[in-house]
Formats: sequence, C-alpha cells, structure tokens
Amino acid sequence: MSGIVVQSIDRAAPDVIDALALCGVATVHEAQGRTGLLAAYMRPIYSGARIAGSAVTISSPPGDNWMVHVAIEQLQAGDILVLAPTSPCEDGYFGDLLATSAQARGCRGLVIDAGVRDLRDLTEMGFPVWSKAVSAQGTIKATLGSVNIPIVCAGAAIQPGDVIIADDDGVCVVPRANAADVLAKAQAREANEGDKRARLGSGELGLDMYKMREKLAEMGLKYV
Amino acid sequence: MSGIVVQSIDRAAPDVIDALALCGVATVHEAQGRTGLLAAYMRPIYSGARIAGSAVTISSPPGDNWMVHVAIEQLQAGDILVLAPTSPCEDGYFGDLLATSAQARGCRGLVIDAGVRDLRDLTEMGFPVWSKAVSAQGTIKATLGSVNIPIVCAGAAIQPGDVIIADDDGVCVVPRANAADVLAKAQAREANEGDKRARLGSGELGLDMYKMREKLAEMGLKYV
Amino acid sequence: MSGIVVQSIDRAAPDVIDALALCGVATVHEAQGRTGLLAAYMRPIYSGARIAGSAVTISSPPGDNWMVHVAIEQLQAGDILVLAPTSPCEDGYFGDLLATSAQARGCRGLVIDAGVRDLRDLTEMGFPVWSKAVSAQGTIKATLGSVNIPIVCAGAAIQPGDVIIADDDGVCVVPRANAADVLAKAQAREANEGDKRARLGSGELGLDMYKMREKLAEMGLKYV
Amino acid sequence: MSGIVVQSIDRAAPDVIDALALCGVATVHEAQGRTGLLAAYMRPIYSGARIAGSAVTISSPPGDNWMVHVAIEQLQAGDILVLAPTSPCEDGYFGDLLATSAQARGCRGLVIDAGVRDLRDLTEMGFPVWSKAVSAQGTIKATLGSVNIPIVCAGAAIQPGDVIIADDDGVCVVPRANAADVLAKAQAREANEGDKRARLGSGELGLDMYKMREKLAEMGLKYV
Amino acid sequence: MSGIVVQSIDRAAPDVIDALALCGVATVHEAQGRTGLLAAYMRPIYSGARIAGSAVTISSPPGDNWMVHVAIEQLQAGDILVLAPTSPCEDGYFGDLLATSAQARGCRGLVIDAGVRDLRDLTEMGFPVWSKAVSAQGTIKATLGSVNIPIVCAGAAIQPGDVIIADDDGVCVVPRANAADVLAKAQAREANEGDKRARLGSGELGLDMYKMREKLAEMGLKYV
Amino acid sequence: MSGIVVQSIDRAAPDVIDALALCGVATVHEAQGRTGLLAAYMRPIYSGARIAGSAVTISSPPGDNWMVHVAIEQLQAGDILVLAPTSPCEDGYFGDLLATSAQARGCRGLVIDAGVRDLRDLTEMGFPVWSKAVSAQGTIKATLGSVNIPIVCAGAAIQPGDVIIADDDGVCVVPRANAADVLAKAQAREANEGDKRARLGSGELGLDMYKMREKLAEMGLKYV
Repeated sequence: MSGIVVQSIDRAAPDVIDALALCGVATVHEAQGRTGLLAAYMRPIYSGARIAGSAVTISSPPGDNWMVHVAIEQLQAGDILVLAPTSPCEDGYFGDLLATSAQARGCRGLVIDAGVRDLRDLTEMGFPVWSKAVSAQGTIKATLGSVNIPIVCAGAAIQPGDVIIADDDGVCVVPRANAADVLAKAQAREANEGDKRARLGSGELGLDMYKMREKLAEMGLKYV
Repeated sequence: MSGIVVQSIDRAAPDVIDALALCGVATVHEAQGRTGLLAAYMRPIYSGARIAGSAVTISSPPGDNWMVHVAIEQLQAGDILVLAPTSPCEDGYFGDLLATSAQARGCRGLVIDAGVRDLRDLTEMGFPVWSKAVSAQGTIKATLGSVNIPIVCAGAAIQPGDVIIADDDGVCVVPRANAADVLAKAQAREANEGDKRARLGSGELGLDMYKMREKLAEMGLKYV
Repeated sequence: MSGIVVQSIDRAAPDVIDALALCGVATVHEAQGRTGLLAAYMRPIYSGARIAGSAVTISSPPGDNWMVHVAIEQLQAGDILVLAPTSPCEDGYFGDLLATSAQARGCRGLVIDAGVRDLRDLTEMGFPVWSKAVSAQGTIKATLGSVNIPIVCAGAAIQPGDVIIADDDGVCVVPRANAADVLAKAQAREANEGDKRARLGSGELGLDMYKMREKLAEMGLKYV
Repeated sequence: MSGIVVQSIDRAAPDVIDALALCGVATVHEAQGRTGLLAAYMRPIYSGARIAGSAVTISSPPGDNWMVHVAIEQLQAGDILVLAPTSPCEDGYFGDLLATSAQARGCRGLVIDAGVRDLRDLTEMGFPVWSKAVSAQGTIKATLGSVNIPIVCAGAAIQPGDVIIADDDGVCVVPRANAADVLAKAQAREANEGDKRARLGSGELGLDMYKMREKLAEMGLKYV
Repeated sequence: MSGIVVQSIDRAAPDVIDALALCGVATVHEAQGRTGLLAAYMRPIYSGARIAGSAVTISSPPGDNWMVHVAIEQLQAGDILVLAPTSPCEDGYFGDLLATSAQARGCRGLVIDAGVRDLRDLTEMGFPVWSKAVSAQGTIKATLGSVNIPIVCAGAAIQPGDVIIADDDGVCVVPRANAADVLAKAQAREANEGDKRARLGSGELGLDMYKMREKLAEMGLKYV
Repeated sequence: MSGIVVQSIDRAAPDVIDALALCGVATVHEAQGRTGLLAAYMRPIYSGARIAGSAVTISSPPGDNWMVHVAIEQLQAGDILVLAPTSPCEDGYFGDLLATSAQARGCRGLVIDAGVRDLRDLTEMGFPVWSKAVSAQGTIKATLGSVNIPIVCAGAAIQPGDVIIADDDGVCVVPRANAADVLAKAQAREANEGDKRARLGSGELGLDMYKMREKLAEMGLKYV
C-alpha cells in the first residue's frame, strides 16, 4: 500500500478552517464529542502557536524522510503536513531546509509522530511543529512511503484533507465533512463561556452555577 | 472511602507558608531530611512560578473532574489544589474556567497527577499548574470522589492542610505540624549558602571548603 | 575501576571547538556520518544555549555527587562537565552552588544523564544544562566514582577530552582526534546550505533541486 | 459519536480466518505489505496462544467497562473483542466473569489497549488476552461508549468485522475485504519458507541464497 | 526521619491474612472500595504465586540495600518485606542470599519498587517477588534508611503491619485495622461470584443478569 | 564510519567463556567491579537460558537488518550476535530464518537493543534472545551498517570479541582481555557463597555474619 501519492484531495472551506484555529484545540475537541485528539506526548517546539489547516498526510518508513519532499509538492497555502512513521521512530525527519520549502508554499506547520530538529531556526522562522521528540538524528532517502493516504498519527485516524487544529494544548483532527458543523458547535460553546467565566470570576461557585448540589447529595456525597 | 468532603482542616501559619515559598523546593526538601518530594515528572506549565500554600486535596476517578467543583468551595485564600486520580490518567481535568473560579477564591495554583488544558489562558491569568501531562482531553462528572482526605500524589503522601511548595524544580510537601520547624532549618541553610556561594564564586574549591581531600584519600581515591 | 582521577587529558584546539559550537548539533552530527548523538531525552533546562567544549567526564554512583567536586578541580576554561551515573538515576546531582564553582573555573555547562536542580538560579547565571530530568532530590557524598575515564552517557561513548556540542536540538560528541576534520566537513555543509535555503525559499522544490524525480519513478512511486 | 451499537457487521469467511491464524502474525503482517500491526506494548497474558477472529470493536471511556457487557451480546462464535479506551487507561476492564460470558458465546479472545485482571483464571480457562497492562483496578458502569464502530487500538485503525490475528509476536489486523487475498500471499510466503529454512539450516548463507554480495559491494561495503 | 528501626509492630490475625490470600488481589481490592492497589508496573518474577502477609517496611536510599539486612531481623513468620527507595531506582537490591535469609525466618516474599536479581535461584526456592524491574546491578551498604516506618511504595501508602496481598494480578495493601472487615466483604463477593459464573457460563448475558438494558436505554444507547 | 566488516577479531579462551556462563550475570557483574551491565529493559524471550559467548557486533540503521546477514558469515561456533541500531528502534530485525542460519554456524544467541519476532519458533529451536521489544514489524535491506566495530548496546560499550554473559537477570559484557581475571574473581565469589548460603539458611543473620551491628550503631541507627 506504499508508493502512492494522491494529488487531488478535498479541503474544508478556508474561513471554516481559520475560525477553528481561533476556537482552539480544547474547545474543538469538546465540540465534536471529545474525539479526535492526538496523544498528549505531541508537544509544540515553542509555546504560543495556534494554527489550523488541511492535512497533507505522509506515511514514512522509520528513519526515512524522502516522502516529505514528495509531500511538499502537494501543499497548498493553508495546509499542514502530518507525518506518521510506519513503525515507532524518534529521528529528526524535518529541519530548517524543509521548513523553508514548506513555508514557501504556504504551509502553516508540521505535526509529526517522530522527531524534529533545527529548533532555533524553526522558532526564528515562526514555523510551528508539534512532535513526539526533538532529535538531531538524520534520516535517509531510500524507501518509498505514501502521501495523502489515510494514516494513524499519535493514536488518531487522519484522512488527507481533514482539518488539523494545534495549539499549546496539543493537536486535534476534525473530519473534513464535519468541519462546518463542529465549528458551529465550538462557537456556541465559546459564546457560552464568556458568561460563565464572568460569573465564576465574581466568586459564584460551579456547584451553584451548574446546579450540582442536588445531584451530588443524591449520589451520596457526605460533608463532614 | 469515596464520597466524603472534609470541610474543616487545619492550616499552617500564613507567614510560615509564605516564607517557605521564598526558600524554594530544593532547600525545603533538604531542610526536612530529603523527604516529601513529588515525582520528577510533575512539571510546571510555565517557568518562573514559585508558590506555597495549604493543600486542599482531591481524590478523583480517572477522567472525572466533578470533585474539583466540590473542592473549590472548600478553598481559602492561600490554598493550593492537589489532585490525585484513583488510577493513572492523563486527561485534562482542569482548564481556564475552573482556574477562574479557584483564583476568585484566592487559590494560588494546582498540583495534579494527571493532565491540564487551556495553557494559554492559564499562563495569561498567572495561574500556575504543576502536572503530569498537558492534555485537552475532556472529563465527565459522573462519579463521586473525595475532598480533603489523605492522598498519594505523584508518589508523595499528602494530608489536607499540609504545606505544598512548588517552583521550577518541582513540588514538595511539608507536613503541617512540621512547617515552622522546617522553615527554621531551611532559612538556616540559606543563611549559610550566601557565604559558600561567594567563596566558590571566587574560585575556592568545594574540595577545600568542605575539607573533602582527606576523606577521599582515605577512601582510596587515586590521582593518576 | 572506580576511584580514579585522570588529571591530564588532551583537548582539541580551542578555535576548532568554538567553531563547532557555531555549526550546531544537527550539522556536526551529519558531518561525522550521523554518529555521536546522545539520546533524545537529554533536554536543555532553558532554550537558546549553544555551546561546545572539552569533556571532563564523571562516573558516579546513583544518588552520589561527590565526584562532581573532584571533577571541578580538573576543569580548565572551556570545558564541559559530562556525568553518567553507574545505574539509572534521576536525582538532582547538581545545583547553583556547584554551578557557581564550575563557572568560576571557566566551565561552559553540564551534560548529565540524571537530574539537575535550582533551575531558576542556573538560568539567571546563564549556566546551561542538558539533563535527563529536573529533580530537587538531594544526593550524598559517600562512595567513590571516577573522573576523566571513558563513559557511556545517554547511549553515547565519550572519552575525556572529546568535544561536546550542545544546543536546542540536543547533545553530540566528536572524538577529539577527529575534531578538526569534522569541523571542516561541517563548515562545508553550512556553506552549501545557504544556497539551498535561498532556492527552496524562492519556491524551488527539493524534488527538482535534488533531482529526485527519476529515482522515485524508478522505485515505483505512483501519482494518482 | 458515542452511544451507538451496530448490530449487523460483515465478517470474513471462517476458513480464511482460521487459515490466517495458522500463518501467524509475522507472516500475515509481511503478506499485507507490512501494515496492520498493533503497538509492540500489546503483550499476551500467557505464551503459546495463536488465534484469529472477527473484530467486535468497543470504544469505552477510561475506567468504564459498561460497553463490554453490551458488546458480548453482539458476539458470534469465532469473534474477538477489541477494546480501545477513549483516553489512555490501564485499568482492569476485563476479568474472569466477562471471559466466562464471552467464551460461552464462542469468543476466541480479547485485544485491549488497557488493562486486564484475573490472570490465573483466564489462563486456566484458556481465554487468551493481549493487553497493554495487567491491573486489578476495577472499573465502573456509568457512561456510554459504542460497539462496532471504527476505532484506533494501539495505533492501528480497526473496523468491526476486520480479521484480528494474535500470537506470541503480537497482534495484527487485516481489513475484512482483503482477508482472502492476504491469506493467499501469506501461504505463498510460507510455502517458500520451508525451502529457505532447510538451506539455511544446512549452513548456506543468506548472503548467497539471496544473492546479496554484489549489491553490498556496489553499495560500498568494505571487508577489512 | 531516616535511621530508625521500629521493632514492635502490630499484625492482623494470621487466619485473616491467610484467608485474604485465597481471595486474591482483584477481589480484595474491590472489597475495600477499589483502594490500596500498587502501580501496575509491579510484576511477579514468576507466575502462579499467591501470598498474603504482614508488611515489614523498608525505606532505602537509591542503590543501597543495607536496610534489608536490618529488616530481616525484624521478620516474623508470615511477613512480607516491602521496600521503597527514597528516589526512583531499578538496581538489584535483593538476590538469593537475602532470600535464603528471609525465608529462614518465615518470610513469604518481597514487594519492591526497585529491582531484584538471581531470578533462577529465587524461582527454584519458591520465594516470590513483585518488582518494578529485574536487574543484576549491585547495591552498596553505606547509608542508613529506616525499617517499619510508613512508606509510599509504587504509589500506595503502606504502614508496617498492614496486610499485603499479591498474586498474578499485582499487589494490594489492606490497612491492618480493616483486615477482618475487608475479608468479610471479599468472601461475600466470592460467594456471589460462583452463581454469576455459572449463569454467564450457561449463556445468560450480563445485560440481563445485571438488569442493565433499561438503564442503557435511558442513557440513550442506540442499536442500529 | 558505516559500511565496514571486520573479519578477524580476537576471542577469549573457550573454557573461560563457558565457565563465565556458569557463574551467571549477577556474579560476573559483581566480580568486575559492578560494571558492564546492559540496561534492565533487555529481557529474555523465554526464561531459563544461560549463555556466554564472544560478541560479533552489528551496527544497523533503524528498521534495516541487512547487516545481520553479513554478520552471520563472520560467526564462529560459540559466538553471540549483538545488535545496536543507530537510532532507537523496536522493529523485529530477527526471526526464525535468521536464527536457523545463525544456529547452523554455532551461534549461541542474540542480544538486540531493538525487536525480535517468531517467538514460538525461536523458543522451540532453543535459540535464546535478549531484546528491548517483541515486534513482528518487518525490516528492510537498503542501507549499510557495520559488523565487528565497537558499539554501545543498551547503554554498555561493547568491542567485538568481548565476552557476553546472559541469563534471566539480564546481560553483562566482560572486556576480552579481562575475561580470565574476571572469571577467577567470579569463581572466588561463588566458592564463598555456598558457606554464606548455608549459614543464612540455618537462621544466622546477615547483621551478625557480616558484623554490621557496630557500624550501624556508629552511623546512628536507632532501634525504637
């Protein structure tokens, strides 16, 4: 099943994608029923980045980054590269030269279930990466993988063209077809949160605001 | 043993608590005989925070943060929330709304042997958290736990009302009854450190300052 | 084999060492045939540091930092302390007092396959550390180890006097005798990179720049 | 997306499934292009078991095994239960009572990306389990999950009705529609292996049998 | 707080302890409200052992097993040694000589949040061990710890004299004062399980036996 | 530095090697000053094996087992294959065909800081393996590594021709030149152990046999 590059993928509407970025990972994850989160070991190389984009997926052998070059040609402005190795690997598949090339094509960042290097340069370039590891270990270009096929990345199933949202809390995937619906729900949550925040900030208790006391008593909670 | 909220707990004297914060985790840990340290995997969500406070403890089922709401009502100004799940869990029990509520009651921070989310907001609010993981994974409110019972958090036994000290080096617990005594010892160590630092900074060797050479020779150390 | 301090070690030329620091870990690692990298779990306590120096090696029992005092006497300006415990340990072997002493002798930093503490002070002092863990756990001074003997640190074999390069990407060791040769190769790579970066930045694809298309086709890559 | 039980799923032909079990995980994984392997941390609770069956999938909240009861009703003879928690969890979802119930319906075993308990009983019953952990930690029945929906289990995407193969080497999934094709390739590999084993066993080298010497020389391998 | 040996500890009644062993870890853990379980990484060195006994606790520095010798003198027939290092350590604190000595005094086994060695001998002797690691790494006798003080072992708080139950599922601690009560509850659970097992074995579903269908429907479970 | 096969290596005397196997890992490790142990994560695929042999070392890229074929030609009767990947990898480099080939040349086993597969066959063949992981994941033959060069395997530096000892306690390396000396020390330890075991077995305490009481009192141990 390797050795395939799918050139034409569908993407969600750009304004939906951009609006999802503003909602952030935690809210989007809640809005779609608490699904789609990548494993918590996926951490940003610097804090403060907050992006969303369409997944261009890469399936690569361990220690081989050849397919990253192939994938970069498939990028459109607003895309995010998402790489899963075919077996666990922490090598540094991606560094400043690849980031320069990806950024030149409008790529917004990288999500990689493996390692990344050249952190100083990537940070200066403002090219955000969420990775399993930081490693200077170089990779080779010897074996084919695939681009824009369905992958499992850090425990989440991702289809090419799905919307990836990433911020300091981690990474979440929204199936392309659900993007507008999830956005609507996420924005509804947000609208709701401002009021809650104000009430909690003024000292009102969640126990009262969410009317939890009766249920807790019924469950048997004892105050002693 | 779950389903209990202890409403009245004893706390150490506020000035003792505040003074322990200034000593920092490493010094306090030394001052009480190298005990009380939580596991090294407990890391701050941002660097530079340095707090001490009285533990309001939470025992929660995996993936269920209901008891956090219950615990917030028990907070007094200067307290720190300390949560241990009843089995290992990295879900995001705590985010910006709960932090807003806790901060409104004077809570100084959270120590959680599980996950936390909304890092951007928590950092902007200046609400420090030491956690095992960062995860956007949402939690439910379905099962009772307990508040202000003895817990084991990240390998350390903690009683409600114990003093928690947390900074970039990690988290340490001081039993409430020992707080004044530990503070005295910690401050004695600090008074002593200024002189040592000056001498080492001027080039004097620890080998000489601590008079180690004779003991090392006796143990058989060979210079070749 | 413990209980030995080798007092006289050979070092690489200072200008070679300083030039290797400028090349950085990823480039140096590539230049010497992708060898010499320490394990990816070795992370800096703060970002942005970029150093190179001669290794003064320490082999220490778990939880015992006595040999660090011994090693500091062996330091020359430009050296880096490199510590490997004799069995896995995450205790905090090193803090601000030892850093003050080491810095007074011109030490550039610490690489430790164990824990470090006093992060706030070390950061303020500008004394960089790459470690396996951050831990306030104190250590004792009871058992001999050795200084300036060959060690394995975080999976890499290191001889005293070898050149250590460390930055945000991790830590790499260059055998002393190869330092000048590796530097030459690293600088050649760097000279080459500027041109590549410019071309990739202007939108040229790696597929074309590296002439990969033919080889990929030959290997059977299918565009669909 | 939770709260759904799909009652009717397609399964592969029983004779194909049984024949895949005889091929074993390593051969089947090779035969389908080195895909479909679950993470290596999935280990059998006792050695020697070798099964294949149709996946009845379970998506469960952390620490909640309610859906296992629901799934057992959906079992047909020859099926295998495959459970993935919605966030990482090592609790003991499954023990001897559930195994008794599953076995009564012809279930061949359990693959669970979480914990299992009652090892002594399960071993005596001959009910094999591949799990991430062994843990006596009990679970609750409070929140809905789903049965027979697509899941990601231990890093592999699994559809209900897919063929699961499990033995001492781990666990592999074969998409239902590919089962017959993969079996044919696996059996072809096996037919081929007997001859190879005999030649290698008689002392012939792989270097000669696979005619590798020329390629190695061309690549630059140097014998010194 | 180190350097203390408590010579006189209270123990639970021998017949209660022996009966708890027969109930097993999973049942006892359930019977006391799902508390008291040690971390799942504590695994037996051989399968099939099933013991209970009174805890003689050891707090030891990392890599130092001196206190094991001290603890052995405190053993009474039917006791179990329980060791927690003062910081994480995987060294081999315990081997065949110590096991011979402990067994001569009637010790039933060892629970150690660190490493053990001489597996072949321990297995032949029938001296069961639950440990975090197997490691031949030797330890020293240089620093004091304590015997029969409260410890935290593998995440569970343990008092000297508490009842330890250990089998293939892991290790559980029952506070001494609760032992008889927990035994009664555990035996009640067991009495109940035989009937359930028979019904489930005959094909009755848990959904019916536990009358879950109504509750599931009410929660919204949908069969499609 | 890759792409090299060293054809002629020195080995220790066969009778010394065989005698080291009888001493076992724990004793040999002690006899050479507690050095040479590989990481504790290196576990045998079945229990009871106890071997020693001369190391034929392999340095291999991640996921590439080509060099194993090359190494097998270099085997002499009594050798042990020792493989370290050039970056962390858990793929299954080795299975029953390679074991058949290696065994045909007198190879006694494999030590691999990566994965192994075909456990059922290897166990039936009596070909022991100590590995970091069990994984069916296949590997490729695309990139050169080296055979019989110095490597670091699971944290230990190993030269070709060094003596490897492996049993249920793990794996230890003895430098070739030291083998006879280490054997003498190991046998002296063993001679000594029989008497100790008998005395401890008869109930004599280590505290008395090793005359520890005075030293403990002097250190300040308090019996309360």
